[in-house]
Amino acid sequence: MRDVAVIGIGIQKWGELWDRSLRDLWVEAALNAIGDAGVDRIDSMYVGCMAPGLFVGQEHLGSLLADYLGVCPIPATRVESACCSGGLALRSGFIEVASGMSDIVLVSGVEKMTDVDGGGATYALATAADGDYEVYQGATFPGLYAMVARDYMHRYGLTREELAQVAVKNHANGSLNPHAQYPMKLTLEGVINSTLIADPLRLMDCSPITDGAAAAIICPLEMAKDLSKQPPVKVAGVGAATDRIALHDRDDFCEFAATVHSSQAAYKMAGVGPADINFCEVHDCFTIAELCVIEALGFFERGTAGKATAAGETALGGKMPINTSGGLKSKGHPVGATGIGQLHEAVTQLRGAAGKRQVKDARRGMMQNMGGSGGSTVCHILEVV
Amino acid sequence: MRDVAVIGIGIQKWGELWDRSLRDLWVEAALNAIGDAGVDRIDSMYVGCMAPGLFVGQEHLGSLLADYLGVCPIPATRVESACCSGGLALRSGFIEVASGMSDIVLVSGVEKMTDVDGGGATYALATAADGDYEVYQGATFPGLYAMVARDYMHRYGLTREELAQVAVKNHANGSLNPHAQYPMKLTLEGVINSTLIADPLRLMDCSPITDGAAAAIICPLEMAKDLSKQPPVKVAGVGAATDRIALHDRDDFCEFAATVHSSQAAYKMAGVGPADINFCEVHDCFTIAELCVIEALGFFERGTAGKATAAGETALGGKMPINTSGGLKSKGHPVGATGIGQLHEAVTQLRGAAGKRQVKDARRGMMQNMGGSGGSTVCHILEVV
Repeated sequence: MRDVAVIGIGIQKWGELWDRSLRDLWVEAALNAIGDAGVDRIDSMYVGCMAPGLFVGQEHLGSLLADYLGVCPIPATRVESACCSGGLALRSGFIEVASGMSDIVLVSGVEKMTDVDGGGATYALATAADGDYEVYQGATFPGLYAMVARDYMHRYGLTREELAQVAVKNHANGSLNPHAQYPMKLTLEGVINSTLIADPLRLMDCSPITDGAAAAIICPLEMAKDLSKQPPVKVAGVGAATDRIALHDRDDFCEFAATVHSSQAAYKMAGVGPADINFCEVHDCFTIAELCVIEALGFFERGTAGKATAAGETALGGKMPINTSGGLKSKGHPVGATGIGQLHEAVTQLRGAAGKRQVKDARRGMMQNMGGSGGSTVCHILEVV
Repeated sequence: MRDVAVIGIGIQKWGELWDRSLRDLWVEAALNAIGDAGVDRIDSMYVGCMAPGLFVGQEHLGSLLADYLGVCPIPATRVESACCSGGLALRSGFIEVASGMSDIVLVSGVEKMTDVDGGGATYALATAADGDYEVYQGATFPGLYAMVARDYMHRYGLTREELAQVAVKNHANGSLNPHAQYPMKLTLEGVINSTLIADPLRLMDCSPITDGAAAAIICPLEMAKDLSKQPPVKVAGVGAATDRIALHDRDDFCEFAATVHSSQAAYKMAGVGPADINFCEVHDCFTIAELCVIEALGFFERGTAGKATAAGETALGGKMPINTSGGLKSKGHPVGATGIGQLHEAVTQLRGAAGKRQVKDARRGMMQNMGGSGGSTVCHILEVV
């Protein structure tokens, strides 16, 4: 397998973008990535998108977006794994470049979520859970993650304040990110007193509904310096895994086994461990998810992530900065784009271009992108070459 | 890149399977493929499916189906390119095996189409066209393909009888296929006098709405003999391409440029040309599509496929047998499964196991699987080793 590098990244400011269509958003991000890399062709492209049929009545995104970018007849593949569709698009593009099948590949993600009628977004998102045994019985994602939070609180003594600190920290980071949907800072009281959604989760524990896209250009590492003036960032580790889709079928609500398995595969490929990672973007769809995930990744012992977060260990300048971008919570969560949005942040950090949210001496970063309540997960490790 | 072989295939009798769910259908096909190959593990899996969110309210198929097959935590990727989602799943699995990332990969497709409320299936299928500029203006796929048929008739003098002969031939083949949804034979008069759908296309020019799944096991060619008792079939050529998604944006309604580009890529990889192919499964979603496609693949000169079909050249025993399985028209068209259904037929022919529909001395076969009105296409060439 050939080594693979990222040589271009593109995004826009995410938000409720009422005057933009899915194709507009995606083409803007793709052109930004192509411009950033400075390449004059693409050999193949991948699009991560969760539910464009339900959100905007459009499937067949490979053809549509290759057409609107003006790159037909190149192969175009849409991949879907709920909210980790973007991470899976990166993995798929990585394999295509590593195999020798293609040299310059566009990997991307997009979701247009706001332009749907009442109740439509919640219904569309619920299709990431088990339709027959969760959704038809009334479960929604806030409800499922609330059960995880209750279980975690019961077992490990997590406090409401510790949980809220995840949101406070991520909004502090997001306030430094020009692409963030909600760059306002939050207070502990603001989170704890926000509207109750599914006890114990409140509105400010939940990631938002977002329109947005992100894209990147990858190529063989050995070609990177000829193809682009950007400093290449190596994709050193890739891992993907699945878990039982329904929460009630799992042995342990708080373990997030697909994160354990996919991160171990990524660590093994990169030849590193958790202690070698300088920062990590994780899938904080709800505040409780961030705590479970950073334990599953091996950064903290089981049951200790809440106290570590409250102590500032995951903040900028802490021993393991988590979600310097603001995370899903502040940057936004256009579900299919989120994994590539994480890639955008990681590459920005590794280029030393993150401005006020820059992690000092960032040489190796990680991304963890998760579908549903953890039924699928993709992890990547990136390195400065 | 490593050479790749198919060592197992699985399917069920397709049809209106009211008592079966999407997950049931898929697991049956997957277990049939695993049993046929005789393997005791899978390293990764791909599922081609077009619109499970719209048809059955379920996305996140990678997690769901890995779970129900009992193979978590392996990576599972759903790919979508409308009606060529299955072909794209094979291409994706091929790349993963060829790259060295995984050894034993399950490639599959599924669609559960009948269990949707009134009008739902036509709406779901229309999301493969350009939502903004075709569907919202009233176009449906029968209407789009009717325009292709009218253009073809006008330019090349195709007769109504020649067009109908595609359906008559495919149902004659399908009558010999135990997995076909509609194995009844048709007469020329039966096609020409069937209900008018979109002039000149009639009901018997159109492929049906179908529930079904299909699956296959692929692995490195050099491991095939150790892993399975089945005679390995080599995936010799792979090609994928895109075209403008909307019919009105193309230079030529009848050219099917994505079929031209993808087949040329597959021929080049396999080091062969149209004259070296012994039989071909093509995407006859409408009778007119088969005529345009077999010209785009290089089997017949532009404008001559109708006369060749009427002369029996594409029938069993003709010089280029097309759709020995019965094609989409008779075997059925569960859209995400169709490309893997084509693979099932091609491998069956190359094993010499097709019974009364066996192509004599079949050594090399081709499959062409197409999305929408030709906005995306995937071609594969298979060979006896």
